[in-house]
Amino acid sequence: MAPKQVKSFPSVPLKDELDIVIPTIRSLDFLEVWRPFFEPYHLIIVQDGDPTKVIKVPDGFDYDLYNRNDINRILGPKASCISFKDGGCRCFGFLVSKKKYIYTVDDDCFVAKDPNGKDINTVEQHLLNLKTPSTPFFFNTLYDPYREGADFVRGYPFSLREGVPTAVSHGLWLNIPDYDAPTQLVKPLERNTRYVDAVMTIPKGAFYPMCAMNLAFDRELIGPAMYFGLMGDGQPISRYDDMLAGWCSKLICDHLNLGVKTGLPYLWHSKASNPFVNLRKEYKGLFWQEEIIPFFQTLTLPKECDTAAKCYVELAKLIKEKLNHIDPYIVRLADAMITWIDAWEDFNPPAEAVPAVANAKKDTVPPKKSK
Amino acid sequence: MAPKQVKSFPSVPLKDELDIVIPTIRSLDFLEVWRPFFEPYHLIIVQDGDPTKVIKVPDGFDYDLYNRNDINRILGPKASCISFKDGGCRCFGFLVSKKKYIYTVDDDCFVAKDPNGKDINTVEQHLLNLKTPSTPFFFNTLYDPYREGADFVRGYPFSLREGVPTAVSHGLWLNIPDYDAPTQLVKPLERNTRYVDAVMTIPKGAFYPMCAMNLAFDRELIGPAMYFGLMGDGQPISRYDDMLAGWCSKLICDHLNLGVKTGLPYLWHSKASNPFVNLRKEYKGLFWQEEIIPFFQTLTLPKECDTAAKCYVELAKLIKEKLNHIDPYIVRLADAMITWIDAWEDFNPPAEAVPAVANAKKDTVPPKKSK
Repeated sequence: MAPKQVKSFPSVPLKDELDIVIPTIRSLDFLEVWRPFFEPYHLIIVQDGDPTKVIKVPDGFDYDLYNRNDINRILGPKASCISFKDGGCRCFGFLVSKKKYIYTVDDDCFVAKDPNGKDINTVEQHLLNLKTPSTPFFFNTLYDPYREGADFVRGYPFSLREGVPTAVSHGLWLNIPDYDAPTQLVKPLERNTRYVDAVMTIPKGAFYPMCAMNLAFDRELIGPAMYFGLMGDGQPISRYDDMLAGWCSKLICDHLNLGVKTGLPYLWHSKASNPFVNLRKEYKGLFWQEEIIPFFQTLTLPKECDTAAKCYVELAKLIKEKLNHIDPYIVRLADAMITWIDAWEDFNPPAEAVPAVANAKKDTVPPKKSK
Repeated sequence: MAPKQVKSFPSVPLKDELDIVIPTIRSLDFLEVWRPFFEPYHLIIVQDGDPTKVIKVPDGFDYDLYNRNDINRILGPKASCISFKDGGCRCFGFLVSKKKYIYTVDDDCFVAKDPNGKDINTVEQHLLNLKTPSTPFFFNTLYDPYREGADFVRGYPFSLREGVPTAVSHGLWLNIPDYDAPTQLVKPLERNTRYVDAVMTIPKGAFYPMCAMNLAFDRELIGPAMYFGLMGDGQPISRYDDMLAGWCSKLICDHLNLGVKTGLPYLWHSKASNPFVNLRKEYKGLFWQEEIIPFFQTLTLPKECDTAAKCYVELAKLIKEKLNHIDPYIVRLADAMITWIDAWEDFNPPAEAVPAVANAKKDTVPPKKSK
């Protein structure tokens, strides 16, 4: 009964519609294991930290690599909104991409196997998640109703069975789970070995901790909300870059009636980061989130906000107004959110009324390297 | 980090705290396959339809069997709230049980196997679900954080990690999925073969289609909301008994900050019911639900309603007032909801102020048969 829009793809799905964004501080040997799945796509590599360091990319991949000097040159003063010495710099890649979809992945993640021992093509599964609708208004107990062998169960309203467009596909991790520092410290040996064979829509109104380790989204629908904040060098906090983007994008998806899915695909997260370092990076977030999350849970955006960018500007204002007492950093963050949207619109002018200046700018972005 | 209250049980978990309620119109040979799991528990069998028909129960089970004559005798005029010739009659068993937990199962359901080929003990898994907290205020992407090998992921607020008491555990079905008649007609051959190894909390504010085929709940917390309505003989509708209970119990759980879980355990649903018969039974529901579900989605209950029974009475009033235009049946249903609470309180008087009369009544309920 469900509209089965997309059940499977040719072996290289939508290769001209997706960019893979990778933030890194090291040589990208990890790409070798991803070669069969990533090689057909264009990679956007965002080099974190020292721009003089040479990042080695295995032969055969099509990529642009941007270091800090490139970011400064391309964005000018607006480069201040892009984090330095933090994986949050990846959002620069979202901004300069020209594709409809982004898949972003960490460089300590590898190909996982499904329970049948088959290598999991994360790109294919993410695209399947993004190309099929979401069902945020009512929970389907057999999970994704658009999947082969599943459907809407008895009692599911027929008026909701068309679903809504999917904006975000949040994939999971086998081996090292994405734990905070306190949990890492308490459970140093815990490994995720459970393969849960499901994709589900996170219901409207529910928030979740979005992790960027294995994340895909529709740039056109939700790109402006995928800002990874001010983290790392010179900032009082790290490891909340993806959390910020998760809170903002979920709020805006709910407001715009877009869907957020979580579950498949899994990848293999190879190495736990140092919990002591993590604790130092994240400890302010551990108590700030106790106030920020309830704030998001009670927010409503005005009806006039009918695009992700408009929503995001409004949200930045609300954060500045309502959360500034937490720390002076919040004001800087809110200002950076506005700068981000300015930069976003320079590179991604709204289709209906493209300003000439922005267009000119758009055409003059020189990628650093390309093979 | 999560409070790991209950990880496993002795081989017969909580045998004095749970009753198994089975509505039936036939001999209960299906119990043979459940013997290792059900035999330690007390069964409450609610015989549906002709009370003169003899229901055969395999030897060795401890049970009470109630037919329509028993229901009429025990409830008197209030028996009018219990459906006749419909599985909805099972809620009579919830009412007369003296246990904390109920597990209710359909008589066309059998023991399923997990992916390792092991028989699934549904009772044990439901009790594990019910005895561990729920997390309705924030979605945990690794599913049940209280499960062995799992926890709360990075970004999950620490203030929410104690969770809330779980009131409902909704289990799933392998083989024949719980589809409505139109979906059955269109997909007569679809079978559910996907074992999703997860239990999750349905977030606060999200509704779901609760199926009673494989359902457990905490009577003390949510029993009064588990009314299965007026269905079957003399009513314009069937197959919405569990849906009604699902809408009401989820609304009330959300209001009282109680949790609802769905997922494991699976059982094996052996036989699809006749889709033509089902269509006749449910077709009014297919369009009524388009109005009733949005009504539930926007309801808020007053703060004073601090027990499931008080919430339920309030909800009955709201349904009578706001949905009576749908069909004259709605008014009868709302009245029956009030009658149900009257009957519930006769048999389950609030602990703090037990009226003597109700107490006397409670002691004089004679079960029909018991071994």
